[in-house]
Order: sequence, then structure tokens, then C-alpha cells
Amino acid sequence: MAFNPGLSSPDWRARLSTEAAAAPASGIAEVMRHGFGRSGIIPLWVGEGDQPTPAFLCKAAAAALARGETFYMPQAGLVELRSALAAYHDRLYGGLFGAPFRAERFFATGSGMQAIQIAIRLAAGAGDEVIVPTPAWPNFAAAVGVAGASARQVPLHFAATGWHLDLDDVERSIGPRTRALFLNSPSNPTGWTASEAELSAILNLCRRYGLWIIADEVYSRFTYDAARRSTPSLHSIIATHDRVLFVNTFSKNWAMTGWRIGWIEAPEALGPPIENLIQYSTSGVAVFMQRAAVLALTQGEAALAALVERSRAGRDIVIGALARLPGIEFAPPGAFYLFFRVAGVSDSTSFASTLIRQANVGLAPGSAFGLGGEGFFRLCFARDPNDLRAACGRLADWMAARSPS
Amino acid sequence: MAFNPGLSSPDWRARLSTEAAAAPASGIAEVMRHGFGRSGIIPLWVGEGDQPTPAFLCKAAAAALARGETFYMPQAGLVELRSALAAYHDRLYGGLFGAPFRAERFFATGSGMQAIQIAIRLAAGAGDEVIVPTPAWPNFAAAVGVAGASARQVPLHFAATGWHLDLDDVERSIGPRTRALFLNSPSNPTGWTASEAELSAILNLCRRYGLWIIADEVYSRFTYDAARRSTPSLHSIIATHDRVLFVNTFSKNWAMTGWRIGWIEAPEALGPPIENLIQYSTSGVAVFMQRAAVLALTQGEAALAALVERSRAGRDIVIGALARLPGIEFAPPGAFYLFFRVAGVSDSTSFASTLIRQANVGLAPGSAFGLGGEGFFRLCFARDPNDLRAACGRLADWMAARSPS
Repeated sequence: MAFNPGLSSPDWRARLSTEAAAAPASGIAEVMRHGFGRSGIIPLWVGEGDQPTPAFLCKAAAAALARGETFYMPQAGLVELRSALAAYHDRLYGGLFGAPFRAERFFATGSGMQAIQIAIRLAAGAGDEVIVPTPAWPNFAAAVGVAGASARQVPLHFAATGWHLDLDDVERSIGPRTRALFLNSPSNPTGWTASEAELSAILNLCRRYGLWIIADEVYSRFTYDAARRSTPSLHSIIATHDRVLFVNTFSKNWAMTGWRIGWIEAPEALGPPIENLIQYSTSGVAVFMQRAAVLALTQGEAALAALVERSRAGRDIVIGALARLPGIEFAPPGAFYLFFRVAGVSDSTSFASTLIRQANVGLAPGSAFGLGGEGFFRLCFARDPNDLRAACGRLADWMAARSPS
Repeated sequence: MAFNPGLSSPDWRARLSTEAAAAPASGIAEVMRHGFGRSGIIPLWVGEGDQPTPAFLCKAAAAALARGETFYMPQAGLVELRSALAAYHDRLYGGLFGAPFRAERFFATGSGMQAIQIAIRLAAGAGDEVIVPTPAWPNFAAAVGVAGASARQVPLHFAATGWHLDLDDVERSIGPRTRALFLNSPSNPTGWTASEAELSAILNLCRRYGLWIIADEVYSRFTYDAARRSTPSLHSIIATHDRVLFVNTFSKNWAMTGWRIGWIEAPEALGPPIENLIQYSTSGVAVFMQRAAVLALTQGEAALAALVERSRAGRDIVIGALARLPGIEFAPPGAFYLFFRVAGVSDSTSFASTLIRQANVGLAPGSAFGLGGEGFFRLCFARDPNDLRAACGRLADWMAARSPS
């Protein structure tokens, strides 16, 4: 451990904490680095649409800045934002526990990612375990590791009719240190969307074992069932005593990916510890961002509907185009992703890199999403229909050219 | 652990991880809550000036929003921002290791607090210890606890001629699990500012024991020595192998407290783990904020000079007024705080609350800052001179009224 000024190049990684040294790079970011700045590439690898934030939201932030709203803020978020979140949830779910949603359940965070970081810290300590059904967005398991806990992956089962989470698999993975289950429905990347009956079964299992559920319903508004305003939610079935922490973001619904603002929703008795964890992470969210977020909740339904419609069109395009290609399989897509398998692919990272170079199409490799993801690719269809058609055309041409027949 | 639906009000805190349940509330926030919204109060409790962000910085962010810069960003920060940080440091310190500062040393974070959170995670794991000279900003030790490590407080010694950090005290506090020392100079709240000789001695001690230094020089530009542009810095003395992580923020220099943007500066070999930790915290900083930050670095010197001048004037006012009061003692103030002791006070939290009610002046209680802080009060003088004069007058009147003589 002694300082050695003669050492030519210290092993910096060996000087780091275990948690920091073990944090993996994101497999999505790795492939993106490969293709960044490449001329003509169609980038479908990232979970982001191609529309900028609606102008009325940008103007609200600019107006707050011009008014001088540049000072420290309440760590839980503005009362206006917390109230707007409660009203928004009332409109979607018609109240909670037989009463209107209370503003005190909601806390502003500096991104959906930060909501996840805080939820993990609330539920799990060093040495604890958190169950993660996979394939899953890799940041969740990575954040569990940064917190000093470990993620226990439980792969969903793939069938062309739909992905399936087997609760016996989940139950078998529960050990004495298991503290929480991560429940992402609709799922990034698989599109798996739990029915209300499935949600009830999962909730009952977690009740039996005293587990927290970290509920990521970020894509709930991206429903392609015209009869619904949102996908099935734990909000409709939980009771007052249930240990559920909802994590969410403004990113997807209102095209605010680059803003870094989200929220955590929790039993209001947890207000003090949540506020403390916010204080010791980023201490709050810029007021001028919160002003835009309030407007998104109160006047953003038309903008959201347009984004969902764009995704629906994109979904139809990619389903139609890829269903015709030999060797490609997928379940009905949800969220705004198509997660498809290519027959014979055993190294999706290398395959994705080749696709970038030879077909100029950027996909996220399934291996980045944990157990059960290898051989698959994630394609984001919340994009320009022409780009999606062109990307599918390039894929078809490239696959035909490499086909042995 | 079993779910008990009959339980009338669950003990939510018992269901939390140790790290979350143990996170303390900020003693500053506690007192502020006491006085928030009180009519006519002069709030000197928080580490924040009373000037809004300069308009040219707000306009830069608004222009970026209007241009549609609302998408995901590189997790380390924009190249333009990292380069501007390198050039800014070059102007202040004339290079590093005999060459210009490299942009690759700098990483944008979602606040100075987040830079601290990441620096702690880099240096210390669960069960490790971090030494914190106190009195200190409470968020540092709290964030150590949230990371599963523990803070070992080493009190500075108070004298009216200046606070003093005894390196023998520090050395005695080093144990087998000690991984880092937090070095905040100029110090919030004491104003203690290490000389270059003191910095060298601290650096040598940390070299001998293989400790990281987490260097918080956030207030370095607030120097009241007309011959200097900044206070003594580790930048002037470190060698390539030294384990130093600098944490910093745009908050104080450019009146951007409410923005939530800072940076971490580290050996560039640590780029991958730092980027991963950013990815799993908030995943980056809004591009439109980064545009303003670039402008602050490249065109913000005049605005910064005006803020420092305002602090200098405030400093003179409070020193002059409080030096005349019986029973009040303080060392020469630094950063933008006067940290003064009131003879006979043994419960600064209760005293601060009484001051709010009876004198309508808001101070932060010394007990909030850890060992050695009890009996002291922190007053922020980066404020309107008239408010400062009025606050000192109220304090003098109130103390005269309660004096037994």
C-alpha cells in the first residue's frame, strides 16, 4: 500500500473499491462507441426517440431561468410538481387505496436512473440480493452492484407467442439475503407486459417472502391496445402495507431523455429516508426543469399521444418487415422495442458490430441485457418511419447476401 | 419477514437497508424547515448567495433548449465542456505535471454532491473508513455512510488566530480499513484554508499510508488575499501517481446553486470506472446545462469577480459587527462563511431555533457540522450588504437584551 514514486504506471484499478472496480461497462454504450459519428448510420440501439422535447416544455424551462429560478430547491421536489404527479396518477388509475393519490408519495429525482439508484439503496444493503428477471436493461443490475449488493438473474422464457416469467423460477432464486425483486413491465428490452393476474401473482409471492418490489413502469403509456390508456399497473392492486417502490422518468413519455428528471413513488412514511438519500446524491432537481415537468403532466397528453402514435406506426413497420425474413423470431413487441432473435447467432456483440460496418444499422446486442439475451437484438422503433423502413431494408439485403442459399 | 395484512401501521424503517435507515437528516435542512416562509427572516443559514445566475448563462441554456439539444449525451460530458475545464485549470494553475491539463481528466457530474458521491464510491467500499476533518459540511460524512463505509471524524483545533488540523490526530485515526481522507480547503464551515506547506504535509501522510485524498476546493476562488486568484491547491504539488480525486461544482463561482452541475477531476486512467459510476447514477448531465457551464468557464471571470467582491464586502461587514459583541469568538473567515462561537451555548440547534423566533435571523447550528462544531454558528456572508448589516444589528440587540448585565 505504500506510495512508490518510482512506479512507472500504477495499477489504478487495484486502488479502487471493489464496488467501483467491478462496475461493468454498459454493453449498449460499447456498441454505440463503435458506430458513433459513422456517416449514414441508422441508430436504433438506444432507448430514445428521434423527436426533440416539445417546444412548450423547453419554453417553460427557459422562462423559469429568465425569472431567476436558479436557487436551491426543496430536496423532495416542488409542491407543485408533487401535486401534479398525484393528479396525473389519479387520472390514470382513479386513485389509490380508495382515495386520491397524495402528493406526499412522490419525490423528484435527477433521472429515472437516480430513482432506481435510490430505490435499490432503500431496499438492499451490502451483501443483500436483488432478483432481476432478464433480459433486462443492464443499468439495473449494475446499480445493484454499485450499491454493494448482488443481482440474481432469473431468465424469462422466450416463445414467439410471448415471453413468460415463471414464478417457480423466481421462488427458487429467493435466498436468505434476498431483499427485492425488480419488476419492469412493459419490459425493456423484451416488451414483455405482465397482465393484472400476473402482477397479482408476483405481488403475492413478494408478500409471502417480505420482498420489496422495485416497479419500473416507465413504458406504461406506450400501449398498443387501443382500449387502454396504460398497461396493467401495480397501482391497481397494491394495498397500503405493500412494499412497492415505483421508479419513473419524464424521458420517454415527453421526449425529455436529455433532461435528467424522474421520480420515485413510495409509501409516504418513507419520506424522510428518501429525502435524505436525495440530499446525499444530487440534493434535488433544478427548479427550471421541474417547471417543465409540471407542464408535461398537466398539458402534455397531446404530445404524449403523438409520440405513442409514432411508436405504433414504427412498430407496425418493423413487425411487417422483419416477420418476412427467414431465421428471425420475436414475440409481440412492447414498450418501444422489438427484441428479435437471429438464428445461428451466438455472439450478438460481434454480430452487432459487423452490422454497423456492413449494413450501417445500429442495434443493441442481446448479450448486453443479461441471461437469456444472447442471440437477440434490440431495435428501438420510436423513430422516423422512413428510417425504420430503410433500416429493415438494409437488414434484409444484408441477410440475403450472407445467406448460403 | 412474512407479510401481515392485519398490521395497522408497519414499521417501514425496519424494512429498509441499514445504509438507508441510518442516513441522517441534514441538521441545516432541519433548522431551515423551522424558519421557511417566516415573514421578514434574514436567511444566512444556507451556503448560497442571493444573486440569481448571470443572465448570459441562463440564455445559453435557453438557446440550447430551443435548438433541440434535448437528447442523451456522452456520460463523461461534452468534449467542449471537458476541454473548457482543462483550459480553465491551465489559467489558474499553469498546467499539471509540467504539461497543459488534459480534457480527459475531467468528468461532468449532476452536482458537486454527485461528484462527492462518486469519489467516495471510487475510493471506499462497504466496511471501509474515510477520515473527515471536522467541523465539516455534513453531506460528506452522510454520503460515506450511504456508501456503506464509515466516516472517522478528526476535529480541527479552534483558536481565534485560526483553525488548525493536527496531522498527528489524523495519523492516529488511520486504521487498517482507512481508504481516504476528505480535504476541504477552504473549509465549509470553518473557513480554514490550508497553506501550500500544510497541503504538502497532508499529501505526504496520505502517500505513506496509501490513502486517497478527496479534495474539495469548491471555494478556492473565494480568496480575500488580493495578491491571489485562488487559494493554495493540491494541483500545485501533486505528482502523476498521487491518488487525488478533485470534486467541484459550478454552484458557488457562477451563482448556479440551483442548476445541479459539477465535475470530478481524476487520473485519466480512471475514465472507464468513473464513466460507469456516472452511468449508474444519473447517466449524464443535460446538454443544455453543459452549454451554460462552458460559457461560465470561458466568459465567466467578470461575473465571478463580482461575486467574490460582494463576498469580500459582506465579510468585512460581519467581521466588523460581530467582533464588537461580547462572548463571540471566531477565526479569520474563509470561503463565504463566518463560523463563530457564542460563549455559554451548549445546544446550538435549540439556540438557532430561538434566534429564528426571537431575532428573525437564520443561522446554521454548529452541531450540524460534526465534532468540534457544537457551540458555533455558520453565517453565509455572500449576501446583500444591507441584509447583513440588519442581521448583525438584530443579533446585537437580541444578545444585549438577554445579557444578564
